[in-house]
Amino acid sequence: MRIAIVGTGAIGTYYGAKLAAGGNDVHFLVRTGLETLRTNGLHITGPGEELHVPKVNCHSSTNEIGACDLVVIAIKTTANAVLPQLIAPLVGTDTRLMTLQNGLGNEELLAGLVDARRVLAGLCFICLRRTSPGVVHRYDYGHISIGEYSGSPTQGTDDLANEFQRCGIKCGVVTNLMLERWRKLVWNIPFNGLSIVAGGIDTAGLLADADLRDSVGRLMEEVIAGANQCGFPLETAAAEEQMKRTATMGGYKPSTLLDFEAGKPLEIEAIWGEPLRRAEAAGAAMPRLRQLTSLLKSLDRLQQRRSARL
Amino acid sequence: MRIAIVGTGAIGTYYGAKLAAGGNDVHFLVRTGLETLRTNGLHITGPGEELHVPKVNCHSSTNEIGACDLVVIAIKTTANAVLPQLIAPLVGTDTRLMTLQNGLGNEELLAGLVDARRVLAGLCFICLRRTSPGVVHRYDYGHISIGEYSGSPTQGTDDLANEFQRCGIKCGVVTNLMLERWRKLVWNIPFNGLSIVAGGIDTAGLLADADLRDSVGRLMEEVIAGANQCGFPLETAAAEEQMKRTATMGGYKPSTLLDFEAGKPLEIEAIWGEPLRRAEAAGAAMPRLRQLTSLLKSLDRLQQRRSARL
Repeated sequence: MRIAIVGTGAIGTYYGAKLAAGGNDVHFLVRTGLETLRTNGLHITGPGEELHVPKVNCHSSTNEIGACDLVVIAIKTTANAVLPQLIAPLVGTDTRLMTLQNGLGNEELLAGLVDARRVLAGLCFICLRRTSPGVVHRYDYGHISIGEYSGSPTQGTDDLANEFQRCGIKCGVVTNLMLERWRKLVWNIPFNGLSIVAGGIDTAGLLADADLRDSVGRLMEEVIAGANQCGFPLETAAAEEQMKRTATMGGYKPSTLLDFEAGKPLEIEAIWGEPLRRAEAAGAAMPRLRQLTSLLKSLDRLQQRRSARL
Repeated sequence: MRIAIVGTGAIGTYYGAKLAAGGNDVHFLVRTGLETLRTNGLHITGPGEELHVPKVNCHSSTNEIGACDLVVIAIKTTANAVLPQLIAPLVGTDTRLMTLQNGLGNEELLAGLVDARRVLAGLCFICLRRTSPGVVHRYDYGHISIGEYSGSPTQGTDDLANEFQRCGIKCGVVTNLMLERWRKLVWNIPFNGLSIVAGGIDTAGLLADADLRDSVGRLMEEVIAGANQCGFPLETAAAEEQMKRTATMGGYKPSTLLDFEAGKPLEIEAIWGEPLRRAEAAGAAMPRLRQLTSLLKSLDRLQQRRSARL
């Protein structure tokens, strides 16, 4: 299969490396470290895996890549404005687009570019960190839940999931993608958000402090209620379940906290802004999410101003 | 009148200087800059006032001061644990205690030390900054609302207010002290709190940003509802009124933000923790205040750890 990986952050590098190692014709769009990747290839480390892909196809422009069977989108949602232009050269008549991005609003953007039935998403349940260009450490998990934007999964999506699994990617197919999006937000909204506004606290730190743990739990409940109001029936037990799962992770810094510490823009609209808008539009009261979103926007704006001055 | 001023931060220095300039026998308990105060006296600057008190009675211990008619308590509430020991030497049979401190819980502490009828509070509506020991700039306002802890004001309190006014302190007497405490919290809870967690934003910055202004307003509404639930009937219009008043202040950094920037502990329990406990105990839902309090506690703890390491 001819696959384009758009973005070589932790997610793009990790899944792209696995798909390439499995024998697919994988082409990476690389923004930083192009020569490093060409010279050194890709390195994946982590519990139970040690993968080196010595030779990878790296490109500085999607024009060089051309049409693919599958386009995997792994750039930050903060760069979504450039996506239409970026992926245009990759799209042929049957190309399927799969966003691995966080939050809400990504599938809708892609569905404006190709037939909505060719839009997929993969929800990544994985703890990764890119330590340098081409080098990614996996701390925990690794599962992707693949779903279709326009409805229940078709044979093509099952085939894709099988191919991912053949390449050593833990993978499942979900029947209600948006429900699963909200389920993931039940985790991302509190952990990614509070880790930043509480002053740079990892998951273990958030769970260890009684007040912060309380804040996590109440935000989770609020997001679940918001999802329900939007028509996605998430069970209340999802909160406690995710709390327990997180306790097994150890001290993990959510990707957004890493972004913040690195001075990068936060994915505010995708993870907090759009869920807030949708839940409130559906009539849900979201006081905690609303306050958190305002604080994150403020911290992000101050940070970006500081970065601009450096 | 023999007056002890316990604490020479901005508040203690400002009101103590006015009372001394008016001819009272004022004694300051000074923790830092004792010699500076003895040598240079006190300097107050600000719109419409320029006051120099060349000679002031400064003491490093309340034992040196002895019993007074009035003890004005102007230390941070974070030091309240030492108050009983600190003020014991100042208390005679008729001594009245007046706390100028922020938030809830201060009068209760004092009422455990003397007859509750001798406990007063002064709510300070003033924008001050101590630029160095003994030197205070007043940016705006200057009003004190004096009230009695145990009930409606008596003749003694009216007399005290008259004396304050004679010394050039704008002063009024309130009949329901706790109602006024809550009214002040309607301002302090959002402005002091959000100014910190939003990344160090002054009042003008909080009002200029639509999202943060929204957060301020909603917190105000929540605090008003909490006060009402506690039996203190604050009108809803109090929020809009305080918003308008704040807009006239210009860019003012609340005292807690200044404390935070200076690495000092935050008055969390008095301003956020105790109001939260009381409102929730009365059955009010306080999601925003609860989240804000957790975040402030976390930032304060991180900051104090950092300070301890320096």
